[in-house]
Order: sequence, then structure tokens, then C-alpha cells
Amino acid sequence: MKTALHYSHDLLKEVIKPNDIVVDATMGNGKDTLFLARLSRNVHAFDIQEMALTNTSQKLKEARLNANLHLEGHQHVGKYLNNNLKAAIFNLGYLPNSDKSIITIPDNTIRAIEAMMKHLLPTGRIVIVVYSGHLEGIIEKDILLEYVAKIPQEQFQVLNYQFINQRNNPPILLCIEKRRPLK
Amino acid sequence: MKTALHYSHDLLKEVIKPNDIVVDATMGNGKDTLFLARLSRNVHAFDIQEMALTNTSQKLKEARLNANLHLEGHQHVGKYLNNNLKAAIFNLGYLPNSDKSIITIPDNTIRAIEAMMKHLLPTGRIVIVVYSGHLEGIIEKDILLEYVAKIPQEQFQVLNYQFINQRNNPPILLCIEKRRPLK
Repeated sequence: MKTALHYSHDLLKEVIKPNDIVVDATMGNGKDTLFLARLSRNVHAFDIQEMALTNTSQKLKEARLNANLHLEGHQHVGKYLNNNLKAAIFNLGYLPNSDKSIITIPDNTIRAIEAMMKHLLPTGRIVIVVYSGHLEGIIEKDILLEYVAKIPQEQFQVLNYQFINQRNNPPILLCIEKRRPLK
Repeated sequence: MKTALHYSHDLLKEVIKPNDIVVDATMGNGKDTLFLARLSRNVHAFDIQEMALTNTSQKLKEARLNANLHLEGHQHVGKYLNNNLKAAIFNLGYLPNSDKSIITIPDNTIRAIEAMMKHLLPTGRIVIVVYSGHLEGIIEKDILLEYVAKIPQEQFQVLNYQFINQRNNPPILLCIEKRRPLK
């Protein structure tokens, strides 16, 4: 079966077309920014660590791809959107091989998700992979699960994909999809 | 995004080949038996209601397909297997448009799952769709979730795929996959 990470990419590939506006909310080492930049010319990627922009920019250059890199928290994503968001991805947890004290903050994550939902196109998707190996991650996962379970079902579907017989908190996948308006 | 039912079929299609031994543990109206019979020549289907066999047999005849229909509870599945099970599906709940007092019993379901796990081939899958619109269904879902969460992760992966922002208990999907043995 597909890992949460692998399935998160499938969910994005199914909907992203070359001119779509898409967002990598957590640039980190730039892997997802690169993945999105192969699918669309209009990628916006966010991170508050300079190292993330340096690494990502290097990766993009080597692959001859482009993306708009923002040294800014993802809670500010709304100002770059205009009811035209097709897809977004969050990798929640800390930047691998980096300062483990810099983690994503649930409040900021939820503010970013709310801004994105406001701008999401019908059939558009917000994909969230939550790594909860650390204590803050477990709390973040619980806060997020509680939040997304209350998203109105008339306008959005929320999928949860996870492996449930594993110790050590394997990553879980959430996907918020905006429904088509009723005719 | 795919419904639990749609994704359950994807998970089966990915692994079933024409000569594989496969099981429909809950024949019901025969839809899944038909689905499996299109993928393999070696389908075994179980139900304790004669009506299920009558309807399914009619459906198979119309489609010119074959399956072994057993008027027997799925807890007896083990006697038809010999370490050769590739895939199985359960639809837990009651037979639609039928006697709602005849429901699947968690004890029998778990006995069937255990027998299947014993005979499952590496990369083989047991797919379980749980409809929990009725009270017994909610109890059954909880018993099953508790059971599958304890399946040893060294030998099996257990996936949970479900929509989590919907009222009225939408169906949930579980998939148990046997890992390849370590070299």
C-alpha cells in the first residue's frame, strides 16, 4: 500500500494542471516545492528559515524549474491568492536535519488552512502530512484532527488516510477537497 | 476524492490476477462477488442467507461469470484455503433491502479475519468496508478498529481510509496487507 507521503503526491497529481496556482506551505528542504514545480508554473512556497530558501532555490536551479519562494510564515498565504487556489501541501513537523526547536505552530497552520479554504477552487485540494514523532507533533496532530473534523461537509470533504497498527506515530495524511457547487 | 467503496475496489484491483484465490466474505446482493469474478476465476463467496445466493447466482449467470457460492458464515472460510489467499473483501453491516435483524457479528468477523490472515500471501490484502449507520454497526466498527490496531506491524500493515467531517457515520475502509518476508 502507498505510504502517507506517496498517497499525498497522488492526491496532488490528480488535480494539478500546468497553469494552476499551487502552494507549498512548508518548504523545508524543498522536495515538495520541486515536486509541485514539475506539475505547475505557478508555485508559491513558504518558510521562515533562510536555509530552506537557499536549499530549495539550489534544487530548483539544478532541475531548471521555477517557483516563488517566500521567506514568510504560511499564515500569510492569503495575500498571494485571489479565489484561484488549486492545491496546497503542508508537511507538519520540523525541517529534517535542522533546528528541532523550530516547529510548525498549530495556530499558524490553522490560519493558513482557513485562508486557503477561502480561496480554494471547486475540486481543489489542501493536503496535510503530519509527522508526530515529537511531543509537540502529537499535540499538533490532535488539534488539527479536531479542527478538520468540524469543517462543514456541505462545502468540503475531509479524508483521513493513515496506518493504524504501527508504533512510533507514523505520519498521517489529511486531505480537504472543495465540493463542486450544487447546480 | 474516491469514496471508501471506490477505493476498496482500487486496493483489490491492484493485487488480483486471473488465477488468484479471492474471497467475498459478505456476498449480500452479489455486487462484490461479481466484481471479484471479473478479476479472477477462483472466487469464494459466503453468506448465511439463501436470498443472497439466489441473487448472486442470477447476477453471475447474466454476466457469464463463475464463483463458488457458499451458504455458510464467513468464519468457516479457513477450510477452503491453503496458504494461498490473495485478497478478500468484507462489507460489514446488513444486506441492503433485506432483513435488518440479520447483521454481521463482530466475533465471527474477527474469526474470519484471523483465518484469512493465516492463509494470506505476501502483498495479499484483506479489505473491510464498515457501514455503521445502525447502532450495532457503531459497536462493530469500534470492536474492529480496536482489533486491527493490534495486528503485529512486523507482518502486516493496516490502513484506515475514511472521511472524518461527515455526520451520519459514513462507511470506513480498513485494509490489512501482508508484508513480504525479510530477505
